[in-house]
Amino acid sequence: MRVLGVDPGLTRCGVGVVEGIAGRPLTMHGVGVVRTPPDAELGLRLVAIEQGIERWLDEYEPELLAVERVFSQHNVRTVMGTAQASAVAMLCAARRGLPVALHTPSEVKAAVTGSGRADKAQVGAMVTRLLRLDAPPKPADAADALALAICHIWRAPAQNRLQQAVALHAAHASKALKGRTA
Amino acid sequence: MRVLGVDPGLTRCGVGVVEGIAGRPLTMHGVGVVRTPPDAELGLRLVAIEQGIERWLDEYEPELLAVERVFSQHNVRTVMGTAQASAVAMLCAARRGLPVALHTPSEVKAAVTGSGRADKAQVGAMVTRLLRLDAPPKPADAADALALAICHIWRAPAQNRLQQAVALHAAHASKALKGRTA
Repeated sequence: MRVLGVDPGLTRCGVGVVEGIAGRPLTMHGVGVVRTPPDAELGLRLVAIEQGIERWLDEYEPELLAVERVFSQHNVRTVMGTAQASAVAMLCAARRGLPVALHTPSEVKAAVTGSGRADKAQVGAMVTRLLRLDAPPKPADAADALALAICHIWRAPAQNRLQQAVALHAAHASKALKGRTA
Repeated sequence: MRVLGVDPGLTRCGVGVVEGIAGRPLTMHGVGVVRTPPDAELGLRLVAIEQGIERWLDEYEPELLAVERVFSQHNVRTVMGTAQASAVAMLCAARRGLPVALHTPSEVKAAVTGSGRADKAQVGAMVTRLLRLDAPPKPADAADALALAICHIWRAPAQNRLQQAVALHAAHASKALKGRTA
Protein backbone atom coordinates (compact mmCIF):
# COMPACT_ATOMS: atom_id res chain seq x y z
CA MET A 1 0.00 0.00 0.00
CA ARG A 2 1.37 3.39 -1.05
CA VAL A 3 0.25 6.30 1.13
CA LEU A 4 0.73 10.05 0.75
CA GLY A 5 0.83 11.59 4.23
CA VAL A 6 0.00 15.28 4.50
CA ASP A 7 0.67 17.40 7.57
CA PRO A 8 -1.50 20.35 6.61
CA GLY A 9 -0.62 24.01 7.08
CA LEU A 10 -1.03 27.21 5.09
CA THR A 11 2.62 28.25 5.28
CA ARG A 12 4.09 24.73 5.19
CA CYS A 13 2.29 21.52 4.20
CA GLY A 14 4.51 18.55 4.98
CA VAL A 15 4.18 15.77 2.38
CA GLY A 16 5.66 12.28 2.38
CA VAL A 17 5.10 9.08 0.44
CA VAL A 18 5.58 5.74 2.17
CA GLU A 19 4.95 2.27 0.81
CA GLY A 20 4.60 -0.93 2.76
CA ILE A 21 2.35 -3.25 4.70
CA ALA A 22 2.13 -3.80 8.45
CA GLY A 23 4.86 -6.07 9.78
CA ARG A 24 7.28 -5.54 6.88
CA PRO A 25 10.04 -2.94 6.35
CA LEU A 26 8.69 0.33 4.94
CA THR A 27 10.00 2.28 1.95
CA MET A 28 10.07 6.05 1.60
CA HIS A 29 9.52 7.25 -1.97
CA GLY A 30 9.60 10.98 -1.36
CA VAL A 31 9.36 13.70 1.24
CA GLY A 32 9.06 17.47 1.03
CA VAL A 33 7.09 20.57 1.83
CA VAL A 34 4.51 22.58 -0.10
CA ARG A 35 5.05 26.21 0.89
CA THR A 36 2.96 29.32 0.33
CA PRO A 37 4.02 32.93 1.05
CA PRO A 38 2.45 34.18 4.33
CA ASP A 39 1.80 37.62 2.82
CA ALA A 40 -0.12 36.31 -0.21
CA GLU A 41 -3.92 36.44 -0.37
CA LEU A 42 -5.66 33.47 1.23
CA GLY A 43 -7.36 32.37 -2.01
CA LEU A 44 -4.05 32.35 -3.88
CA ARG A 45 -2.36 30.41 -1.08
CA LEU A 46 -5.06 27.74 -1.36
CA VAL A 47 -4.50 27.58 -5.13
CA ALA A 48 -0.74 27.12 -4.51
CA ILE A 49 -1.46 24.28 -2.07
CA GLU A 50 -3.78 22.66 -4.62
CA GLN A 51 -1.09 22.83 -7.31
CA GLY A 52 1.53 21.44 -4.92
CA ILE A 53 -0.61 18.49 -3.77
CA GLU A 54 -1.62 17.74 -7.37
CA ARG A 55 2.07 17.50 -8.31
CA TRP A 56 2.70 14.99 -5.51
CA LEU A 57 -0.35 12.92 -6.51
CA ASP A 58 0.73 12.97 -10.17
CA GLU A 59 4.33 12.03 -9.46
CA TYR A 60 3.90 9.35 -6.79
CA GLU A 61 0.42 7.97 -7.60
CA PRO A 62 -0.46 6.99 -4.01
CA GLU A 63 -3.45 4.72 -3.33
CA LEU A 64 -4.59 6.73 -0.33
CA LEU A 65 -4.18 10.11 1.35
CA ALA A 66 -3.60 10.18 5.12
CA VAL A 67 -4.12 13.59 6.67
CA GLU A 68 -4.03 14.93 10.20
CA ARG A 69 -7.43 15.26 11.86
CA VAL A 70 -7.61 18.89 12.91
CA PHE A 71 -8.62 19.86 16.42
CA SER A 72 -9.31 23.31 17.76
CA GLN A 73 -7.08 22.87 20.80
CA HIS A 74 -4.32 25.23 19.60
CA ASN A 75 -4.15 28.82 18.47
CA VAL A 76 -7.42 29.68 16.71
CA ARG A 77 -5.75 31.29 13.70
CA THR A 78 -3.40 28.36 13.12
CA VAL A 79 -6.26 25.89 13.39
CA MET A 80 -8.29 27.71 10.73
CA GLY A 81 -5.30 27.65 8.35
CA THR A 82 -4.73 23.97 9.08
CA ALA A 83 -8.39 23.15 8.43
CA GLN A 84 -8.33 25.09 5.16
CA ALA A 85 -5.09 23.50 3.92
CA SER A 86 -6.32 20.02 4.85
CA ALA A 87 -9.60 20.66 3.01
CA VAL A 88 -7.66 21.40 -0.18
CA ALA A 89 -5.54 18.24 0.20
CA MET A 90 -8.62 16.08 0.84
CA LEU A 91 -10.40 17.67 -2.13
CA CYS A 92 -7.49 16.87 -4.47
CA ALA A 93 -7.45 13.21 -3.39
CA ALA A 94 -11.22 12.68 -3.36
CA ARG A 95 -11.56 14.27 -6.81
CA ARG A 96 -9.34 11.45 -8.14
CA GLY A 97 -11.35 8.81 -6.34
CA LEU A 98 -8.64 8.20 -3.73
CA PRO A 99 -9.78 7.32 -0.20
CA VAL A 100 -8.89 9.81 2.53
CA ALA A 101 -7.98 8.65 6.05
CA LEU A 102 -7.80 10.93 9.07
CA HIS A 103 -5.57 10.31 12.06
CA THR A 104 -5.23 12.41 15.19
CA PRO A 105 -1.79 13.71 16.21
CA SER A 106 -1.76 11.41 19.23
CA GLU A 107 -2.63 8.36 17.10
CA VAL A 108 0.31 9.21 14.85
CA LYS A 109 2.73 9.72 17.75
CA ALA A 110 1.56 6.52 19.44
CA ALA A 111 1.93 4.56 16.19
CA VAL A 112 5.55 5.53 15.54
CA THR A 113 6.93 6.07 19.07
CA GLY A 114 4.65 4.06 21.35
CA SER A 115 3.55 7.21 23.17
CA GLY A 116 0.73 9.56 22.19
CA ARG A 117 2.56 12.39 23.94
CA ALA A 118 5.95 12.04 22.23
CA ASP A 119 7.68 15.26 21.13
CA LYS A 120 8.72 16.29 17.61
CA ALA A 121 12.33 15.10 18.10
CA GLN A 122 11.16 11.63 19.13
CA VAL A 123 8.81 11.37 16.13
CA GLY A 124 11.63 12.53 13.84
CA ALA A 125 14.05 9.99 15.32
CA MET A 126 11.60 7.09 14.88
CA VAL A 127 10.68 8.12 11.32
CA THR A 128 14.42 8.18 10.51
CA ARG A 129 14.88 4.70 11.98
CA LEU A 130 11.75 3.12 10.50
CA LEU A 131 12.49 4.41 7.00
CA ARG A 132 16.26 3.78 7.34
CA LEU A 133 17.16 7.41 6.55
CA ASP A 134 20.53 9.05 7.20
CA ALA A 135 19.03 11.98 9.12
CA PRO A 136 15.63 13.15 10.33
CA PRO A 137 13.69 14.84 7.49
CA LYS A 138 13.56 18.63 7.90
CA PRO A 139 11.44 20.60 8.58
CA ALA A 140 9.42 18.79 11.24
CA ASP A 141 6.31 19.06 9.05
CA ALA A 142 7.97 16.77 6.50
CA ALA A 143 8.79 14.19 9.20
CA ASP A 144 5.22 14.46 10.51
CA ALA A 145 3.83 13.75 7.05
CA LEU A 146 5.92 10.55 6.85
CA ALA A 147 4.76 9.61 10.37
CA LEU A 148 1.14 10.03 9.23
CA ALA A 149 1.69 7.70 6.28
CA ILE A 150 3.42 5.12 8.51
CA CYS A 151 0.62 5.40 11.07
CA HIS A 152 -1.94 4.69 8.38
CA ILE A 153 -0.10 1.67 7.00
CA TRP A 154 0.21 0.17 10.48
CA ARG A 155 -3.28 1.03 11.72
CA ALA A 156 -5.11 0.14 8.51
CA PRO A 157 -5.27 -3.65 9.15
CA ALA A 158 -6.70 -3.06 12.64
CA GLN A 159 -9.17 -0.52 11.30
CA ASN A 160 -10.23 -2.87 8.52
CA ARG A 161 -10.70 -5.76 10.98
CA LEU A 162 -12.75 -3.46 13.22
CA GLN A 163 -14.89 -2.33 10.30
CA GLN A 164 -15.39 -5.94 9.22
CA ALA A 165 -16.39 -6.93 12.75
CA VAL A 166 -18.87 -4.06 12.97
CA ALA A 167 -20.33 -4.93 9.56
CA LEU A 168 -20.59 -8.62 10.52
CA HIS A 169 -22.28 -7.75 13.81
CA ALA A 170 -24.72 -5.46 12.01
CA ALA A 171 -25.52 -8.21 9.50
CA HIS A 172 -26.13 -10.75 12.30
CA ALA A 173 -28.27 -8.29 14.24
CA SER A 174 -30.31 -7.53 11.14
CA LYS A 175 -30.78 -11.28 10.45
CA ALA A 176 -31.81 -11.93 14.07
CA LEU A 177 -34.30 -9.05 13.90
CA LYS A 178 -35.75 -10.35 10.64
CA GLY A 179 -36.08 -13.83 12.16
CA ARG A 180 -37.96 -12.38 15.10
CA THR A 181 -40.37 -10.28 13.04
CA ALA A 182 -40.95 -12.95 10.35
CA MET B 1 -20.22 45.12 -9.30
CA ARG B 2 -21.57 41.55 -9.26
CA VAL B 3 -20.77 39.60 -6.08
CA LEU B 4 -21.29 35.94 -5.18
CA GLY B 5 -21.84 35.71 -1.45
CA VAL B 6 -21.12 32.35 0.17
CA ASP B 7 -22.19 31.42 3.70
CA PRO B 8 -19.97 28.36 4.08
CA GLY B 9 -20.99 25.07 5.68
CA LEU B 10 -20.42 21.39 4.98
CA THR B 11 -24.09 20.42 5.09
CA ARG B 12 -25.47 23.65 3.63
CA CYS B 13 -23.50 26.36 1.81
CA GLY B 14 -25.72 29.38 1.26
CA VAL B 15 -25.04 31.09 -2.09
CA GLY B 16 -26.45 34.34 -3.45
CA VAL B 17 -25.59 36.68 -6.32
CA VAL B 18 -26.18 40.42 -5.91
CA GLU B 19 -25.30 43.21 -8.33
CA GLY B 20 -25.07 46.90 -7.58
CA ILE B 21 -22.98 49.78 -6.32
CA ALA B 22 -23.16 51.59 -2.99
CA GLY B 23 -25.96 54.14 -2.85
CA ARG B 24 -28.07 52.59 -5.64
CA PRO B 25 -30.81 49.95 -5.54
CA LEU B 26 -29.42 46.42 -5.57
CA THR B 27 -30.44 43.52 -7.83
CA MET B 28 -30.55 39.85 -6.86
CA HIS B 29 -29.63 37.50 -9.70
CA GLY B 30 -29.87 34.21 -7.87
CA VAL B 31 -30.01 32.55 -4.47
CA GLY B 32 -29.76 28.96 -3.32
CA VAL B 33 -27.97 26.34 -1.28
CA VAL B 34 -25.24 23.83 -2.09
CA ARG B 35 -25.97 20.75 0.03
CA THR B 36 -23.91 17.68 0.83
CA PRO B 37 -25.11 14.54 2.63
CA PRO B 38 -23.95 14.52 6.30
CA ASP B 39 -23.23 10.79 6.15
CA ALA B 40 -20.92 10.99 3.10
CA GLU B 41 -17.13 10.88 3.45
CA LEU B 42 -15.52 14.26 4.11
CA GLY B 43 -13.43 14.21 0.91
CA LEU B 44 -16.52 13.51 -1.22
CA ARG B 45 -18.46 16.28 0.52
CA LEU B 46 -15.70 18.73 -0.36
CA VAL B 47 -15.82 17.56 -3.99
CA ALA B 48 -19.62 18.13 -4.01
CA ILE B 49 -19.12 21.66 -2.64
CA GLU B 50 -16.50 22.35 -5.30
CA GLN B 51 -18.87 21.20 -8.05
CA GLY B 52 -21.71 23.28 -6.62
CA ILE B 53 -19.65 26.48 -6.32
CA GLU B 54 -18.22 25.96 -9.83
CA ARG B 55 -21.78 25.78 -11.20
CA TRP B 56 -22.66 29.11 -9.54
CA LEU B 57 -19.48 30.75 -10.83
CA ASP B 58 -20.14 29.43 -14.36
CA GLU B 59 -23.76 30.47 -14.42
CA TYR B 60 -23.57 33.94 -12.83
CA GLU B 61 -20.00 35.02 -13.66
CA PRO B 62 -19.50 37.19 -10.56
CA GLU B 63 -16.55 39.62 -10.36
CA LEU B 64 -15.80 38.77 -6.75
CA LEU B 65 -16.49 36.19 -4.05
CA ALA B 66 -17.50 37.41 -0.60
CA VAL B 67 -17.24 34.76 2.09
CA GLU B 68 -17.76 34.72 5.83
CA ARG B 69 -14.57 35.06 7.87
CA VAL B 70 -14.60 32.02 10.13
CA PHE B 71 -13.98 32.33 13.85
CA SER B 72 -13.50 29.59 16.35
CA GLN B 73 -16.02 31.02 18.80
CA HIS B 74 -18.68 28.37 18.23
CA ASN B 75 -18.84 24.60 18.36
CA VAL B 76 -15.42 23.21 17.36
CA ARG B 77 -16.79 20.63 14.96
CA THR B 78 -19.01 23.12 13.15
CA VAL B 79 -16.15 25.61 12.86
CA MET B 80 -13.88 23.01 11.25
CA GLY B 81 -16.57 22.18 8.68
CA THR B 82 -17.13 25.87 8.01
CA ALA B 83 -13.40 26.48 7.55
CA GLN B 84 -13.14 23.52 5.16
CA ALA B 85 -16.18 24.53 3.09
CA SER B 86 -14.97 28.14 2.88
CA ALA B 87 -11.53 26.96 1.76
CA VAL B 88 -13.11 25.13 -1.18
CA ALA B 89 -15.20 28.17 -2.16
CA MET B 90 -12.16 30.49 -1.97
CA LEU B 91 -10.09 28.00 -3.97
CA CYS B 92 -12.71 27.88 -6.76
CA ALA B 93 -12.77 31.69 -7.02
CA ALA B 94 -9.02 32.28 -6.76
CA ARG B 95 -8.35 29.58 -9.37
CA ARG B 96 -10.32 31.73 -11.84
CA GLY B 97 -8.46 34.86 -10.83
CA LEU B 98 -11.45 36.29 -8.94
CA PRO B 99 -10.68 38.35 -5.83
CA VAL B 100 -11.94 36.95 -2.53
CA ALA B 101 -13.20 39.23 0.24
CA LEU B 102 -13.78 38.13 3.82
CA HIS B 103 -16.30 39.74 6.14
CA THR B 104 -17.05 38.85 9.75
CA PRO B 105 -20.60 37.92 10.75
CA SER B 106 -20.90 41.14 12.77
CA GLU B 107 -19.72 43.27 9.83
CA VAL B 108 -22.42 41.64 7.70
CA LYS B 109 -25.15 42.14 10.30
CA ALA B 110 -24.10 45.75 10.90
CA ALA B 111 -24.06 46.44 7.16
CA VAL B 112 -27.59 45.23 6.47
CA THR B 113 -29.40 45.93 9.78
CA GLY B 114 -27.31 48.67 11.44
CA SER B 115 -26.51 46.36 14.38
CA GLY B 116 -23.66 43.85 14.59
CA ARG B 117 -25.75 41.78 17.00
CA ALA B 118 -28.92 41.46 14.89
CA ASP B 119 -30.60 38.04 14.81
CA LYS B 120 -31.27 35.85 11.77
CA ALA B 121 -34.86 37.08 11.40
CA GLN B 122 -33.75 40.70 11.29
CA VAL B 123 -31.06 39.93 8.67
CA GLY B 124 -33.64 38.00 6.62
CA ALA B 125 -36.12 40.87 6.85
CA MET B 126 -33.59 43.47 5.70
CA VAL B 127 -32.30 41.28 2.85
CA THR B 128 -35.92 40.88 1.70
CA ARG B 129 -36.46 44.64 1.81
CA LEU B 130 -33.13 45.67 0.24
CA LEU B 131 -33.52 43.23 -2.66
CA ARG B 132 -37.30 43.89 -2.99
CA LEU B 133 -38.19 40.20 -2.58
CA ASP B 134 -41.65 38.84 -1.79
CA ALA B 135 -40.46 36.79 1.19
CA PRO B 136 -37.23 36.16 3.12
CA PRO B 137 -35.04 33.61 1.27
CA LYS B 138 -35.04 30.19 2.96
CA PRO B 139 -33.06 28.59 4.54
CA ALA B 140 -31.31 31.27 6.63
CA ASP B 141 -27.96 30.29 5.02
CA ALA B 142 -29.27 31.54 1.66
CA ALA B 143 -30.33 34.88 3.19
CA ASP B 144 -26.94 35.14 4.92
CA ALA B 145 -25.16 34.62 1.60
CA LEU B 146 -27.12 37.52 0.08
CA ALA B 147 -26.36 39.65 3.15
CA LEU B 148 -22.63 38.92 2.65
CA ALA B 149 -22.80 40.06 -0.98
CA ILE B 150 -24.70 43.24 0.01
CA CYS B 151 -22.21 43.90 2.82
CA HIS B 152 -19.35 43.69 0.35
CA ILE B 153 -20.95 46.01 -2.19
CA TRP B 154 -21.61 48.60 0.51
CA ARG B 155 -18.30 48.30 2.34
CA ALA B 156 -16.09 48.02 -0.75
CA PRO B 157 -15.83 51.78 -1.44
CA ALA B 158 -14.79 52.46 2.17
CA GLN B 159 -12.31 49.55 2.10
CA ASN B 160 -10.83 50.77 -1.17
CA ARG B 161 -10.47 54.31 0.21
CA LEU B 162 -8.81 52.89 3.34
CA GLN B 163 -6.41 50.76 1.29
CA GLN B 164 -5.54 53.77 -0.90
CA ALA B 165 -4.88 55.90 2.20
CA VAL B 166 -2.64 53.20 3.71
CA ALA B 167 -0.74 52.79 0.42
CA LEU B 168 -0.32 56.57 0.12
CA HIS B 169 0.88 56.82 3.70
CA ALA B 170 3.38 53.99 3.13
CA ALA B 171 4.65 55.68 -0.02
CA HIS B 172 5.11 59.00 1.83
CA ALA B 173 6.83 57.31 4.76
CA SER B 174 9.17 55.44 2.40
CA LYS B 175 10.00 58.72 0.59
CA ALA B 176 10.63 60.53 3.89
CA LEU B 177 12.89 57.66 5.01
CA LYS B 178 14.85 57.74 1.74
CA GLY B 179 15.25 61.52 2.09
CA ARG B 180 16.63 61.03 5.59
CA THR B 181 19.12 58.27 4.68
CA ALA B 182 20.23 59.89 1.41
